[in-house]
Amino acid sequence: MVKVFTLVSAEVGKAKEVLSGLKKTGLEVYPLFGEYDFIVLAETVDLKTATATILEKIQAVKGVTRTRTLVGAEI
Amino acid sequence: MVKVFTLVSAEVGKAKEVLSGLKKTGLEVYPLFGEYDFIVLAETVDLKTATATILEKIQAVKGVTRTRTLVGAEI
Amino acid sequence: MVKVFTLVSAEVGKAKEVLSGLKKTGLEVYPLFGEYDFIVLAETVDLKTATATILEKIQAVKGVTRTRTLVGAEI
Amino acid sequence: MVKVFTLVSAEVGKAKEVLSGLKKTGLEVYPLFGEYDFIVLAETVDLKTATATILEKIQAVKGVTRTRTLVGAEI
Amino acid sequence: MVKVFTLVSAEVGKAKEVLSGLKKTGLEVYPLFGEYDFIVLAETVDLKTATATILEKIQAVKGVTRTRTLVGAEI
Amino acid sequence: MVKVFTLVSAEVGKAKEVLSGLKKTGLEVYPLFGEYDFIVLAETVDLKTATATILEKIQAVKGVTRTRTLVGAEI
Amino acid sequence: MVKVFTLVSAEVGKAKEVLSGLKKTGLEVYPLFGEYDFIVLAETVDLKTATATILEKIQAVKGVTRTRTLVGAEI
Amino acid sequence: MVKVFTLVSAEVGKAKEVLSGLKKTGLEVYPLFGEYDFIVLAETVDLKTATATILEKIQAVKGVTRTRTLVGAEI
Repeated sequence: MVKVFTLVSAEVGKAKEVLSGLKKTGLEVYPLFGEYDFIVLAETVDLKTATATILEKIQAVKGVTRTRTLVGAEI
Repeated sequence: MVKVFTLVSAEVGKAKEVLSGLKKTGLEVYPLFGEYDFIVLAETVDLKTATATILEKIQAVKGVTRTRTLVGAEI
Repeated sequence: MVKVFTLVSAEVGKAKEVLSGLKKTGLEVYPLFGEYDFIVLAETVDLKTATATILEKIQAVKGVTRTRTLVGAEI
Repeated sequence: MVKVFTLVSAEVGKAKEVLSGLKKTGLEVYPLFGEYDFIVLAETVDLKTATATILEKIQAVKGVTRTRTLVGAEI
Repeated sequence: MVKVFTLVSAEVGKAKEVLSGLKKTGLEVYPLFGEYDFIVLAETVDLKTATATILEKIQAVKGVTRTRTLVGAEI
Repeated sequence: MVKVFTLVSAEVGKAKEVLSGLKKTGLEVYPLFGEYDFIVLAETVDLKTATATILEKIQAVKGVTRTRTLVGAEI
Repeated sequence: MVKVFTLVSAEVGKAKEVLSGLKKTGLEVYPLFGEYDFIVLAETVDLKTATATILEKIQAVKGVTRTRTLVGAEI
Repeated sequence: MVKVFTLVSAEVGKAKEVLSGLKKTGLEVYPLFGEYDFIVLAETVDLKTATATILEKIQAVKGVTRTRTLVGAEI
């Protein structure tokens, strides 16, 4: 299993629509103060599925302008 | 009370209009050199009001392209 | 309630000890690839308690060299 | 007059001592969540005095590990 | 010879097209998680050719929004 | 006198036009590898003139998307 | 397989020793100009092995002060 | 010829000594406000000499804690 934490920037003025769109993906999402507007938490079976989640679910939300994904490590 | 410091980037060529728009919000605003073009200081009753201030006042100014908010802590 | 996401850097060579120390705080912690070595999730009653959690629990772990906390907003 | 906003990082575990030291400088100081631990606001007569304020007052506080100063512009 | 590592950001929603475009340049390219979407490796005869590679090959790919090149040093 | 170093990002695919435009300002300009595409060096009489140089000369060049100015200090 | 690109910072004044140490790990390593001093390329069977490579090989080199790993995605 | 711009961080409290040490290298140096404390300008015959300048001159100055070099491109 791969845990990923995707930081998401929204277009200025579109935070509410982006939040609503991110929630519809069924992923765990929290609005943030700071450089990024949201953090999305996902757990996927492998890196291929993690990539698909980011590209096809998160980046598919209208108003998302940038994502930065922190990949969970296994110590 | 929550003190927030919002760093604001303006569209290239729109610094004067953005400054004027930010001043109309009634918040304390200073132009900056550096990565961000302005810093806006606000004091709000709670995090919900802080979020509303950023989304509905600061990001509502035409020409604002990005904001990054530093949230005051209480030591 | 305030949700905080604290990114943590560990001293080079001390990742395992820091992970073990962070787990003992009882907070939710995940190791990461990237600029930071861990993400710690906490939910606190207010900003004062959030600050105390970072300063007295997370930063109290031996080997922690830097923290950066993303504060949850309320849209 | 030059307005400067100095972001300050404190040694891990020394936030309270650094806050106390910064307050003794007589400058306006606020603790922060995020990449930096404090923001210090100062207004000085010129850039030379601004530099002296940072080097001789802020950086003179024991436990300060890094400063980053945003210089006020005049639009 | 100059070794360069170019980090590439793609327009949100265009990762597959950008990957396909980057591969057509004949350069070595890998998709990434994180702040940048791809890393492109190139070895060129001098800095002038390195600049041309970035401007005329990598930045010529439709959907590329930003590049950041790390230049190889010679210790 | 105030020495300023302005890092400039150009629109992808417009580096040559931006270089040409920056040179026409009469300021000292160098292309760069890395996060920014150019560095512009200027010496101005005060901060007000420095701000005007950035807003009315550098940001007036078509294709400039972002600037970040490092302000010279006086130790 | 997981491809990882680890950016490495060396202690000031120790670049040659760190380069020599990184080469002894058998991994592909290049010195860099910029924010980081080296890039190390590795291909590992899974994320667990990638983590071990970073912690037990790269971070074990004396003089390494910081690492930042870019994880390869699979589009 | 290769033009390099090296951003230099000094140990907190050592800015004057570092400035003095950097000046003794014979390179062009300016103190800065911001994330870095100095910018050093150098022109060298090739990348190998540029690397040597950074490692053997700039990083040899006592009190330097970090350098980040922007390499000049040739458009």
